[in-house]
Amino acid sequence: MRTSLDCVPCFIRQTLDAVRMISEDRGVHEAIVREVLDWTSKMEFSDSPPDMAQRIHRRLREMTGEDDPYREIKQTHNLLALRLLPEMQKKIGAAEDPLILAVRLAIAGNVIDMGVSGNVDEEDIIREIDKALSEAFTGDGEEFRKAVEESREILYLADNAGEIVFDRLLIEQLPPAKVVLAVRGRPVLNDAVRKDAETAGLNRMVRIVDNGSDAPATIFEDCSPEFRELFETADMIIAKGQGNFESLSSRGENIYFLLKAKCPVIAEHLGLPVGTHVASRFSRDSL
Amino acid sequence: MRTSLDCVPCFIRQTLDAVRMISEDRGVHEAIVREVLDWTSKMEFSDSPPDMAQRIHRRLREMTGEDDPYREIKQTHNLLALRLLPEMQKKIGAAEDPLILAVRLAIAGNVIDMGVSGNVDEEDIIREIDKALSEAFTGDGEEFRKAVEESREILYLADNAGEIVFDRLLIEQLPPAKVVLAVRGRPVLNDAVRKDAETAGLNRMVRIVDNGSDAPATIFEDCSPEFRELFETADMIIAKGQGNFESLSSRGENIYFLLKAKCPVIAEHLGLPVGTHVASRFSRDSL
Repeated sequence: MRTSLDCVPCFIRQTLDAVRMISEDRGVHEAIVREVLDWTSKMEFSDSPPDMAQRIHRRLREMTGEDDPYREIKQTHNLLALRLLPEMQKKIGAAEDPLILAVRLAIAGNVIDMGVSGNVDEEDIIREIDKALSEAFTGDGEEFRKAVEESREILYLADNAGEIVFDRLLIEQLPPAKVVLAVRGRPVLNDAVRKDAETAGLNRMVRIVDNGSDAPATIFEDCSPEFRELFETADMIIAKGQGNFESLSSRGENIYFLLKAKCPVIAEHLGLPVGTHVASRFSRDSL
Repeated sequence: MRTSLDCVPCFIRQTLDAVRMISEDRGVHEAIVREVLDWTSKMEFSDSPPDMAQRIHRRLREMTGEDDPYREIKQTHNLLALRLLPEMQKKIGAAEDPLILAVRLAIAGNVIDMGVSGNVDEEDIIREIDKALSEAFTGDGEEFRKAVEESREILYLADNAGEIVFDRLLIEQLPPAKVVLAVRGRPVLNDAVRKDAETAGLNRMVRIVDNGSDAPATIFEDCSPEFRELFETADMIIAKGQGNFESLSSRGENIYFLLKAKCPVIAEHLGLPVGTHVASRFSRDSL
């Protein structure tokens, strides 16, 4: 999807949140804000929002000399989610429809997003889990089930650390034998990389590939040839989170987007209220 | 006060809100956003936030060829407040302490601010009035009363249209004979100009001056010599709203700021929570 003018204040807000998290040097804060303002004044609005986020986070890493500034927070989120895992597995095991409950919980995990809110705690996550247990998502669950059943290979595009533990719940139901899990190629924001997939125990369950890119999204042109081939040959793609939606919303009928619509621009693009839990292919008719 | 880095995303947000209100041309929206991004990338953070707002709104008027784009909304707010006026006057007349209730209501009127929220309706205003009736403000009411009693000339710096009807309630208690009312020198945002003071009936009660400036604030250096002399000779200055606070917080011990702290940067500068109603001189000790 294109970048909206409404994304621009949010780029600046996110830059500030990110640089304050990474550095205590006010000079660094001001310098990066000035740079991002200059970039956005000249940006192409036909690019998707994560193009700019990729550029911002590259520059943040360069300015601070820190290759993975979110390392600690990612590990905190992974461990927090892992503590909740057995209880959630039990609930899925006891559910009338384990697949659909796993979809709901995978979407709930999408609340762990340092790009949108800058902060998330255990209470937020538990609130989302409770909501997922009682509320349906927008999208056709039966169509999703059928696509899963008919697919030989499902490419699962992970989103954030912590959230990836929730993805494990869904992958366990697909089942894992069908799944190739893709993570980001390099650390960016709190997005999941290979290490996070391993922390979630997914390396013992599925084949893991990295997409070769450091965008907080799946910018197809920026991904490795290996990933692109997988993307083009998979029967079904499950794309988690807003970044993957922003970068892939115009690409392919076999992509199921699982996300919580956290920002007004994405909610409007989806034609749904902010806060909606979505599991659907994207065409304005399908929702 | 200086501009905070946190003001920057808000400048862009406010620019977008304003240009969308004024023009339906997406090309105009994009052009002004790009310009403001470029300006802010190079701005002096030692300037106060309204310096940038002044520049933005000048450019908006220039680009749209509309000298007073908020004319209609200002009149709507004036008339809305005028409908509520008799009831508020009755409450003040029946109050145990009319001056203090008038201060509270004048602060409540500060909710009418197109710069911060982009939108305000009758319900918001009535909610603020109810709050003002029951809740105290932060500041020393007795010190304020004493300053009023001991002053021969009080310079009252108005803020927004609509809000100026609430200012009338306070001016009636000062009493009017002591008051010179200052409004903005030219239309900017929904700030009150002479016509709004007249609509509020204040021309029949007090001397009205305009400050000679088109800033949504009182940027002293930008004001007319006549206004500056009044400012320097008045015994007491009552400055309404965030813009006047942002531009005058470091100037003079005889300035009483009456405002609702609507934004986190100002609240932090005041050392008070967002949403606090304030009637106080500004030094960190006095609050």
